[in-house]
Amino acid sequence: MSTQSIQVGIIMGSKSDLPVMQDAVEVLKELGVGFEVTIVSAHRTPHRMFSYAEEAASRGIKVIIAGAGGAAHLPGMVASITHLPVIGVPVKSSNSIDGWDSVLSILQMPNGIPVATVALNAAKNAGILAAQIIGTFDETIGQNLLSFKKGLKEKVEETASEVEAMKF
Amino acid sequence: MSTQSIQVGIIMGSKSDLPVMQDAVEVLKELGVGFEVTIVSAHRTPHRMFSYAEEAASRGIKVIIAGAGGAAHLPGMVASITHLPVIGVPVKSSNSIDGWDSVLSILQMPNGIPVATVALNAAKNAGILAAQIIGTFDETIGQNLLSFKKGLKEKVEETASEVEAMKF
Amino acid sequence: MSTQSIQVGIIMGSKSDLPVMQDAVEVLKELGVGFEVTIVSAHRTPHRMFSYAEEAASRGIKVIIAGAGGAAHLPGMVASITHLPVIGVPVKSSNSIDGWDSVLSILQMPNGIPVATVALNAAKNAGILAAQIIGTFDETIGQNLLSFKKGLKEKVEETASEVEAMKF
Amino acid sequence: MSTQSIQVGIIMGSKSDLPVMQDAVEVLKELGVGFEVTIVSAHRTPHRMFSYAEEAASRGIKVIIAGAGGAAHLPGMVASITHLPVIGVPVKSSNSIDGWDSVLSILQMPNGIPVATVALNAAKNAGILAAQIIGTFDETIGQNLLSFKKGLKEKVEETASEVEAMKF
Amino acid sequence: MSTQSIQVGIIMGSKSDLPVMQDAVEVLKELGVGFEVTIVSAHRTPHRMFSYAEEAASRGIKVIIAGAGGAAHLPGMVASITHLPVIGVPVKSSNSIDGWDSVLSILQMPNGIPVATVALNAAKNAGILAAQIIGTFDETIGQNLLSFKKGLKEKVEETASEVEAMKF
Amino acid sequence: MSTQSIQVGIIMGSKSDLPVMQDAVEVLKELGVGFEVTIVSAHRTPHRMFSYAEEAASRGIKVIIAGAGGAAHLPGMVASITHLPVIGVPVKSSNSIDGWDSVLSILQMPNGIPVATVALNAAKNAGILAAQIIGTFDETIGQNLLSFKKGLKEKVEETASEVEAMKF
Amino acid sequence: MSTQSIQVGIIMGSKSDLPVMQDAVEVLKELGVGFEVTIVSAHRTPHRMFSYAEEAASRGIKVIIAGAGGAAHLPGMVASITHLPVIGVPVKSSNSIDGWDSVLSILQMPNGIPVATVALNAAKNAGILAAQIIGTFDETIGQNLLSFKKGLKEKVEETASEVEAMKF
Amino acid sequence: MSTQSIQVGIIMGSKSDLPVMQDAVEVLKELGVGFEVTIVSAHRTPHRMFSYAEEAASRGIKVIIAGAGGAAHLPGMVASITHLPVIGVPVKSSNSIDGWDSVLSILQMPNGIPVATVALNAAKNAGILAAQIIGTFDETIGQNLLSFKKGLKEKVEETASEVEAMKF
Repeated sequence: MSTQSIQVGIIMGSKSDLPVMQDAVEVLKELGVGFEVTIVSAHRTPHRMFSYAEEAASRGIKVIIAGAGGAAHLPGMVASITHLPVIGVPVKSSNSIDGWDSVLSILQMPNGIPVATVALNAAKNAGILAAQIIGTFDETIGQNLLSFKKGLKEKVEETASEVEAMKF
Repeated sequence: MSTQSIQVGIIMGSKSDLPVMQDAVEVLKELGVGFEVTIVSAHRTPHRMFSYAEEAASRGIKVIIAGAGGAAHLPGMVASITHLPVIGVPVKSSNSIDGWDSVLSILQMPNGIPVATVALNAAKNAGILAAQIIGTFDETIGQNLLSFKKGLKEKVEETASEVEAMKF
Repeated sequence: MSTQSIQVGIIMGSKSDLPVMQDAVEVLKELGVGFEVTIVSAHRTPHRMFSYAEEAASRGIKVIIAGAGGAAHLPGMVASITHLPVIGVPVKSSNSIDGWDSVLSILQMPNGIPVATVALNAAKNAGILAAQIIGTFDETIGQNLLSFKKGLKEKVEETASEVEAMKF
Repeated sequence: MSTQSIQVGIIMGSKSDLPVMQDAVEVLKELGVGFEVTIVSAHRTPHRMFSYAEEAASRGIKVIIAGAGGAAHLPGMVASITHLPVIGVPVKSSNSIDGWDSVLSILQMPNGIPVATVALNAAKNAGILAAQIIGTFDETIGQNLLSFKKGLKEKVEETASEVEAMKF
Repeated sequence: MSTQSIQVGIIMGSKSDLPVMQDAVEVLKELGVGFEVTIVSAHRTPHRMFSYAEEAASRGIKVIIAGAGGAAHLPGMVASITHLPVIGVPVKSSNSIDGWDSVLSILQMPNGIPVATVALNAAKNAGILAAQIIGTFDETIGQNLLSFKKGLKEKVEETASEVEAMKF
Repeated sequence: MSTQSIQVGIIMGSKSDLPVMQDAVEVLKELGVGFEVTIVSAHRTPHRMFSYAEEAASRGIKVIIAGAGGAAHLPGMVASITHLPVIGVPVKSSNSIDGWDSVLSILQMPNGIPVATVALNAAKNAGILAAQIIGTFDETIGQNLLSFKKGLKEKVEETASEVEAMKF
Repeated sequence: MSTQSIQVGIIMGSKSDLPVMQDAVEVLKELGVGFEVTIVSAHRTPHRMFSYAEEAASRGIKVIIAGAGGAAHLPGMVASITHLPVIGVPVKSSNSIDGWDSVLSILQMPNGIPVATVALNAAKNAGILAAQIIGTFDETIGQNLLSFKKGLKEKVEETASEVEAMKF
Repeated sequence: MSTQSIQVGIIMGSKSDLPVMQDAVEVLKELGVGFEVTIVSAHRTPHRMFSYAEEAASRGIKVIIAGAGGAAHLPGMVASITHLPVIGVPVKSSNSIDGWDSVLSILQMPNGIPVATVALNAAKNAGILAAQIIGTFDETIGQNLLSFKKGLKEKVEETASEVEAMKF
C-alpha cells in the first residue's frame, strides 16, 4: 500500500502473476498515484471477487487494474460488477497457449461491458493508463505524465547519440 | 422444460445463442434426459449467474451445459461456483474472431476448475456428453446411448451403399 | 457534435470506418457525454494527426477514441503525442486479415505508451469506457452508467423469462 | 492401480506423456477415486485401442481419460467405440506445433461423438472432471470435491494476505 | 467404380465430403487409373474403418485417398492399420475452424505412421499424387502424367497470350 | 503494355489473379511508369518462369511485381534468379487458408534472397512501391509521387469536412 | 549413398537441415531402401534445382524427399518440374515463425502440382512414406514395412506393461 | 557511418533492435552501399521521427530501412511522411507475440502507403533489397549483387559436395 490516498486497485488471479504485475506498482509510484495490491481469483474465490468489485467504488477506488492468464476471466468479471473503468493485463502464464488465450479472453468482451486491454504482460502500460485516467481531472498527475513522456524521449535521444557515434 | 425429472440445466449468455444451443435440446429429448433452458449472462447478470450456479445442485441438476461466445466467461464462472460437471459450448457469435476467442476462453481454464469443452457450436455433442454423464449410473440412458450410436452407424452404412452405387 | 461540452474526441482513419464507429456516438449520447467526430488518417494525413493529438488536451478533450483497421497506427501514434487516455477500436476493415492485424497493431504497444484496446469492432464499448473514465470524477455520468448497467440486466432477465416460457 | 474400485481409466498415447498425465493420477488419489493407468496408442496399437475401448464399460470403468499430442486421435477414437464419457487431454508433445494440433484434433469432434476436452496439458483438470462425473451420483466424492474447492479458496486467501502485507 | 482394375480406394468420412472428393475421381479418370469410392467414418463406423483398412492391400488396392474434416481422424487411423501409402485430404467442412483443425489433425501424425497430406480441399492433387505413386512403376500412367503436365503448361501459355494481348 | 518505356514487369501465377493485380496496372498508369503484364506460373510453367526472370534485366525491366496465392512460390523463385528488386503481392486466392499461406510463403524468404512483400491483395501498393523505386533516380516519377501523396491527403481532408458537418 | 540401387533422392535446402533430415536416412536404411543425399537450394542454386529435378527420373529415382524451412519452395518447385512423387518435409528452421511458414508453403500447393506433405520436422515419416511408395510394387519392402509396424506395436506393449506395473 | 556517400538510412525503434539490425549494416558494407544508422522511436520520439522522415530525401537518402517490434509503427509512419521507398524489418522483440504483431503491423499497410516488408528479423535481406533498389540505376552495385548471388551459389555447391561425400 502506498502513502497517497488509494485510487487504483491492482488485483491478480494468482501470486505467480506478481513478477509481471509489479511493473504497474513501480510506474504508479513513479507517477505519484496511490494504489493497493492484492490477490483475487475469479475461479478459486468467486465470492471474494464479487465483494472486491462491488465495494471498490465506495472505498474510493477510481480505476481497477486486473491481471490474469489463460482463460482469464478476472478483468471481465470485475467489469461486469463495477461501473469503474477496468484495465486488463493479459499475463502469459505457464498454462497459456503462447498468450493468445490470455489476450482473447480479456479483450473480446461483449457489447456493454468494456475492459481496457493492454499488451501481453504490459502491466507497466496498465499503470500508466490508470494514471492517465486519474490525470484527466488531477492536474498534478497530468504534469507527472508530461514529465514521464519527456523522460522517454530523452532516453531515446541519448541512445540515438550513442548509436550514431558507433563505428560500423 | 421437458417432462422427465430435470437433470441437465442448459444456459446461454444471450438469446442469440439459442439457434446453436437448440441442438442440445433436441438430442437430450431424443436420449430421454430431462432438462431446463434459460438465459444467464455472466457479464450482464452476474448475480443471477451466481444464484443459478449456487442453487443448481440442490435443485437436482446433475450437469450444466453453458454456451457463450467471444470472451466467453459463463462456463468457467459457473464451474468456479458449483462442483457439478460443467460442459462448455464455444459459440461462434457475431462478435467473435472466427471462434478462436470463444474456444480459448472456455477451454483454457486454470488448474482446479475444469470445463468440459466441446467443439465450436457443437451443442449437440454437449447434449450427448451430458447424457453420457447421466448414463454412467442410469442404465436406461446408457441403453439409449447405445441405440443412438447404432443409429449413427446405420446412417453411414446407408449413405455408403448409395455412394457405392453411384456411377462415376 | 453534441450539445454538451465536448469531452470525447472520436476519430477514425477513413470514412469507411464510420458504420462501425457510429456505435460509440450512440452510446455516448445515451450516457450524456459530449463528443466530436472527425476523420484523421495517420498514414494519409500525418500532420493533421499530429495537430489533432497535440491540441486535444488544450481544447478540453479528456479522452480520445480512435478507430482503425489493418496496420492500424492511428491509436498508437495519437497516444505517442498526447498524454490523454486513448481508446483504440480495432476495425475489421476490408483489407484486414480476419481482424488479427487490426487487433495486434493497436494492442501490442511498447512500454511507456498504452492504448486502451477494446474488442474487434467494439466501438460501443469504446464509448462506454470513455464514459467510465469521465464518470470517475463526474457523478452524473457515474449515475448514468449505473442505470445503463441496470438496463442491460433487465433486458437479459426479460429474454430469460421468454426462453423459460418456450416449449421445447 | 489404486486400492478403491477402479472407476476411471487413464490412458495415453506414449510413455512420454506420463509426466503430464501424472497430474490426473495425483488428483484422483486426493479425491478418493479409484483408477488404472496404461499406455494405448491409437496409431501404433490400433487393435489394443479397440479392445480397451470396447471392454472398458463391462470392466466397470465409468469415465476414460485419454491424453495425446500432435494429431491426437486417441481420445476421439476411444469415444467412437465406447458410450462412456471420454475426457481428452491435449498434450503439448515435442512434435506438436505449439499445442494447436493437439487441441484441435481432440476438441473439434464431429456431431455424434463428443470428447470432453480440457486445457492444454491440464491432466489435473481431467482428473477433477472425472471425479465430478463420478460425484454426480456418489455423495462421498461430491463431498470430497466441495472440500477440494474450499482448499483452493483458502490457499488464495492466504497468498492474498501475504501480498497485502508486502511493502511496495 | 471405374472399368480399369481398381488400384486406388477413395474414402471419405461423410457424404457431405463428396463434392470436394469428386475432384479426385475426375482426375483419376483423366489419368487412366482405376478406383473405387465409398463412405467410411472413423467415428461413426470404427469397425467398418478397421475392416476397410485391413483388407485393402489384399483386395489389390495400392493407394488409399481419405478425406475428412474437423478433428479428421480417418486418414491417420487408416494409416495406422494398413501399410499402404495413405493420402489425406483435409476438407473444410461446415464444422471446421477455417480448415485449421482439418489440416493439423491429418498432417501432424506421430513418427512411424505417415499420412501424405495435400492442401485444404485439394482432392484433385490427391488423385494426381495417387497416380504418381502408381506411375512410379507403371509406364502408361507415367506417360499420362507427362501429358497432363504438358496440358497444364499449355493452358498457362494460352492465358499468357490472352493477357499480353489485352489493352491496359 | 503502356506507351512509356517499360520499366516494371507485372506477372501473376494465374489469370484468376488479374482482378487483384489490375490495381498495380492502374496506379502505374496514374504515376506515369511504363509496364508490361503477363502470366507466369512457377508451378505449371517453370521454364517460362526461368526465362522471364533471367531475361528481365537485359530487356530493360527495373522492377518485377509478382502476385500469387496459396503456396505462392513465384515471387521468391523469380527473386532467386534475377538481381532486380522483386515485389511480392500475396493474393487471397480461392485455395488459400484465409491468406496466411500466401503471405507467409512470400514474406518468409531465407537470408540472401529478399522479396519486398506488400499487404494481402495490395497490388496497388506494389505499383506505388515500384514507382518509388524508379522515382529514387527519376525526378519526374518522384514529383508524381509527391502529387499522389498530396491527393491522398486532400481526399481525407474532404471526407473529414463531410463528417464534421454531419449531425449525430 | 547406400549400397542398394538408389530409388529415393533426399535433398534439402541447407546443410543446417541435415540433423532433421538424417531421420529419413536412418529409417530408409532400416527398411532396406536405397537412397542418395545432397543439398539443393531452390533460392540459392535454382539451376542446380532444375537439373536435379529434370534428371531424377532418368537416373532411376522413384521418389524425391525434399526438406526446407521458412518460405520453403524446394519441394513444390521440384514437383513442378518432375512427374515423380515428391514428399515435402517442413523444417522448423531458425528463421521460421514457429514452423507455420514451412508447413503452409509446402502444403498449400495449387491444383495440378501435389506435394505429399508430412508433419513438421517429420523426416522419419517422409522416409517411411517413400518406402510405402516403393513397397506398393516391391514385395520385400512391403514385408519390411509390416515388420516395422509390428515393431512399433511391440514397443508400445512393452511400455504399457511397464506403466501398468508402476505404483501410483 | 560508412565512407561512401550515404544512400541508405537505417533506423530502429530501440537500441535493443541493434543486434538484429546489424545484419543490414554488414551486408551493405559487403555490397559497397553507403549508409547511416540511428535510433528513431515512433512512439517515444514522434517529432524526431517526423523530422527524420521529412528531411531524408533532401539529405540524399534514397532508401530507408526501418526495424521495429510489437505494434511496430515506425516503418509505416515514416512511409506516410516521405515518398522514398521504405523497407520494414519486423523484429521479434521481447514484447512480441511470437513475431505476429511485428509482421502484421508492418506488412498490412493501407492502400496508398506501401512498406516493403521482409521476413521476421531479416535485416540482412533488408540490406540486400536496399542495394537492389540502388543497383537498379547504379551499375557498380548491380555488379556487386551479381557477385553476391554467385557467392551464395558457390557456398551451397560446396556444402553439397561435403554432404555427398558423407557416409550414411
